[in-house]
Amino acid sequence: MSGRTEAQLRELGLTLPVPAVAVANYVPFVASGSLLFVSGQLPLDQGRLVAAGHLGDTVAVEDGYRAARQCALNLLAQAAAALDGDLDRIRRLVRLSGFVACVPSFVDHPKVINGASDLMVEILGDAGRHSRVAVGVAALPLGAAVEVDATFEIAA
Amino acid sequence: MSGRTEAQLRELGLTLPVPAVAVANYVPFVASGSLLFVSGQLPLDQGRLVAAGHLGDTVAVEDGYRAARQCALNLLAQAAAALDGDLDRIRRLVRLSGFVACVPSFVDHPKVINGASDLMVEILGDAGRHSRVAVGVAALPLGAAVEVDATFEIAA
Amino acid sequence: MSGRTEAQLRELGLTLPVPAVAVANYVPFVASGSLLFVSGQLPLDQGRLVAAGHLGDTVAVEDGYRAARQCALNLLAQAAAALDGDLDRIRRLVRLSGFVACVPSFVDHPKVINGASDLMVEILGDAGRHSRVAVGVAALPLGAAVEVDATFEIAA
Repeated sequence: MSGRTEAQLRELGLTLPVPAVAVANYVPFVASGSLLFVSGQLPLDQGRLVAAGHLGDTVAVEDGYRAARQCALNLLAQAAAALDGDLDRIRRLVRLSGFVACVPSFVDHPKVINGASDLMVEILGDAGRHSRVAVGVAALPLGAAVEVDATFEIAA
Repeated sequence: MSGRTEAQLRELGLTLPVPAVAVANYVPFVASGSLLFVSGQLPLDQGRLVAAGHLGDTVAVEDGYRAARQCALNLLAQAAAALDGDLDRIRRLVRLSGFVACVPSFVDHPKVINGASDLMVEILGDAGRHSRVAVGVAALPLGAAVEVDATFEIAA
Repeated sequence: MSGRTEAQLRELGLTLPVPAVAVANYVPFVASGSLLFVSGQLPLDQGRLVAAGHLGDTVAVEDGYRAARQCALNLLAQAAAALDGDLDRIRRLVRLSGFVACVPSFVDHPKVINGASDLMVEILGDAGRHSRVAVGVAALPLGAAVEVDATFEIAA
């Protein structure tokens, strides 16, 4: 990996994780035309969930924020794998969908998913400004507190 | 704004709201090629939620329907902002994703999200007929009863 | 319908169901450029739900898996309708979004949605390998246990 996006990661002291391998009949990403669809990422850091449980119950908003940030880092790791390591080929982050495991009374989903949004803009600059949807769900795979998927526009 | 879509809004006595400003590191819409991705919209009318709470609990289906209609109006307001006010540049509403905050026993999500679907077809005519997914979620931002996002195909 | 995809369906002893008709102001699919967006499909088999209720409560993982498989079959039926019966025009299944109605303690969403992923790869081969998101929701239309939507890349 090289170029300005890598420099920005270094500047922030961040290292892209090894992208998770899909463990079933799906794949971590599919490119179609200029769109790159990346599968939903859990907040896994070296194989462990950064946050498990439900917001509004055992998981605080700050923990959810950190988990969403980890999801975003994992999304970028998958994008790097899709782009032969060249994240500068990302022209725009088009869409983030953020899913927050929460109790019915929870209302601060945006504050949680901001963890993913902030990381994307920190790393990608204006190209990281995206459209977004954030919702609260009953539960997520492995008991994760957050899951985020992404659609990027990429250069050929 | 001008043209047949504006005329249709006038005919129905509807006024597009001032589009909500995103309050974080995301934006209300991103265009990529001929697709316009609009962020999830809550049923806000002049800053107040049309319906808060959960379907099957304190929110009746008719109230959810009205909330979904407001989400759709807000989606069109964002689309108008993206298209310099010219909604006639919408070639097709491609996709609506409808999220309904509900109790586990609720089953009438389609009747709720019809509020958004109906408004789109009233305003856009056949170009408003869309593919759709409707699901019931644990909770939504601000305690909203409904959230809807949209993908449009637009003319250059 | 003809060609290798039909042969594969026959080989597996599967028949595409009659695609469900949308019962409101939305449609079962919309094509935009080379993308085909198919509406969320419930696990209906001849008008009856293959699985109703919540995973982690009354619905076992194997039942959820079978339901997701039925959703995938219904997605292919809609794709066939969109493509004049020629599923060989599918260049790639780009994205599956899988929604699992579940209790908050449920964690095996991937095992459930694998039912849809497996069916797609059985029928479409490598073109069926897709990006995916799987989440657990509070409830689904009609009380269904699973709902899946799809985005395909299609040949002109």
